[in-house]
Amino acid sequence: MQAISHYQQVISDYFNALSVVKDPVNLYEPAAYILSLGGKRMRPVLTLMAAEIFNADCKEALPAAVAVEIFHNFSLVHDDIMDDAPLRRGKETVHEKWNTNTAILSGDAMLIMAYRYFEAYEPETFRDLAKLFSKTALEVCEGQQWDVDFEERNDVTVPEYLKMIEYKTAVLVGAAMKMGAIVANTSQENADLIYDFGRNLGIAFQLQDDYLDAFGDPETFGKQVGGDIIENKKTYLYLMALHHGDDAGKEQLKELFCLQPENSDEKVEIVKNIFTTSGADAQTKKAIEEYTLKAFDMLEKLDIDDSKKAMLRAFGENLMQRKV
Amino acid sequence: MQAISHYQQVISDYFNALSVVKDPVNLYEPAAYILSLGGKRMRPVLTLMAAEIFNADCKEALPAAVAVEIFHNFSLVHDDIMDDAPLRRGKETVHEKWNTNTAILSGDAMLIMAYRYFEAYEPETFRDLAKLFSKTALEVCEGQQWDVDFEERNDVTVPEYLKMIEYKTAVLVGAAMKMGAIVANTSQENADLIYDFGRNLGIAFQLQDDYLDAFGDPETFGKQVGGDIIENKKTYLYLMALHHGDDAGKEQLKELFCLQPENSDEKVEIVKNIFTTSGADAQTKKAIEEYTLKAFDMLEKLDIDDSKKAMLRAFGENLMQRKV
Repeated sequence: MQAISHYQQVISDYFNALSVVKDPVNLYEPAAYILSLGGKRMRPVLTLMAAEIFNADCKEALPAAVAVEIFHNFSLVHDDIMDDAPLRRGKETVHEKWNTNTAILSGDAMLIMAYRYFEAYEPETFRDLAKLFSKTALEVCEGQQWDVDFEERNDVTVPEYLKMIEYKTAVLVGAAMKMGAIVANTSQENADLIYDFGRNLGIAFQLQDDYLDAFGDPETFGKQVGGDIIENKKTYLYLMALHHGDDAGKEQLKELFCLQPENSDEKVEIVKNIFTTSGADAQTKKAIEEYTLKAFDMLEKLDIDDSKKAMLRAFGENLMQRKV
Repeated sequence: MQAISHYQQVISDYFNALSVVKDPVNLYEPAAYILSLGGKRMRPVLTLMAAEIFNADCKEALPAAVAVEIFHNFSLVHDDIMDDAPLRRGKETVHEKWNTNTAILSGDAMLIMAYRYFEAYEPETFRDLAKLFSKTALEVCEGQQWDVDFEERNDVTVPEYLKMIEYKTAVLVGAAMKMGAIVANTSQENADLIYDFGRNLGIAFQLQDDYLDAFGDPETFGKQVGGDIIENKKTYLYLMALHHGDDAGKEQLKELFCLQPENSDEKVEIVKNIFTTSGADAQTKKAIEEYTLKAFDMLEKLDIDDSKKAMLRAFGENLMQRKV
């Protein structure tokens, strides 16, 4: 097994070597642009890592890893249009730098390009990878649609919310790891277990995102602390406060989430206070813990060396101890 | 071999039976809507027809045919956003009936759904179909990008224009037929020849679209005659007039294509006159004839019964004798 930074380097080297932009430039340049913005490359790193865990050379998994990263970036390009987001990773979004039509069409091309990377594999592997990819990609679309739908609804349940973040975020983490397992040609059981490890860790990760957005350290948290509160996002913290808070707190929370005050400092403080007194913060921490442990349970059942299990566990713990 | 109407019925029956819309409704309802609007179903009909020509049961080719039709409709949904089109097949476009975000996301889901239909086939066939599909889908995106780019350019060459319509329209016709050939497991040579038959016929068809838009019979032509002229679209007729016209006509044409007069009747008449006097109409007819004959040349080389060749030729002739 290699260090995470090694895998990140393999992925970065690959995308850096892709500098030749072919004609029509307006189709391929936005794709090269978004892929060059970097990020942690978490998903493709997981594909490479999973392949090595199941005894394949990580280079064999590179096409699948690249497909996962291109798909993820496709979803960012189209999501940024829908959210009207000006910035992505501190740089202009594609629809801002070019225009909406270019962002739609380049995104479409990226989705197709992702599929083409599976052509590097033999027919059986190709089909297994493409099937998993299609299933996952459609679930990501469903998750995004639920996220959009939930903005308009005031009766979103906790199971609905959990399913939304599972589909929008977590299934791709699971699929990224399972693709490494498929390339390595390990047992179906191992492949399913590593998928569930990634999926549960993905849910824990997303819940932690909700938590840190309100309670992260402003010194180390990458984004503006309280951003979700300012945007009236109905996160897990919000749903828990509505479930476990007292009536006065629930009413105040609902009212505050109808407002967009110019100076939001006071609103953020009041809401955070409700999140704490209602026990929503503790409930969220508990859920993060539970999904992390569910992920670790999968590791126990994996048919791999204990040293590799320990390594995956350390990776998970490291991910869940982040402050940013 | 069956009548075209039989194949159309098979496709229609399939989409009509797909009435169950799953959750999230806002993702799948727009897809079901656009697929229900009908149209001639030309592409999937060609897939079924090609399968039978190469001695397979057309039902075997149904999943591939459905994939082609879903992809085609995906491209209509996204193109209609880009063109800001209010109507499609006489009904509201998806982005008008819902909104742009819904049209983007439903379109994405349709592109992925198309791939899933290939999962009905064995791994080797699956890979051959998905590879051809990805290559074709990316070319369609490239063709669409060129079409967008050409709107801003005044120096588009004839070869560039022909490549644009080939990619935007014709390659999907060729691929639709080749998919039938792949499902029927015919020789590589037959598969390539039927692809080139479809591709050349597709180019002829698109050039005929350009021609009929100006010179079609208003009584039978489905769209407004002169629509391309009113919108200053640089069609094959326009490019031919710039190549073969006299200097005065060329200048007048360029000037008219910078204007958008409220009453366009006079403009349409003058431009049509330039198309005729410059010989652009004759040149366009000649090109249509040439590409149709190129398509028919492919038939000669096909390793199938003469009666089937005659049938494909009759289909092509029928398509090219249309007045609408």
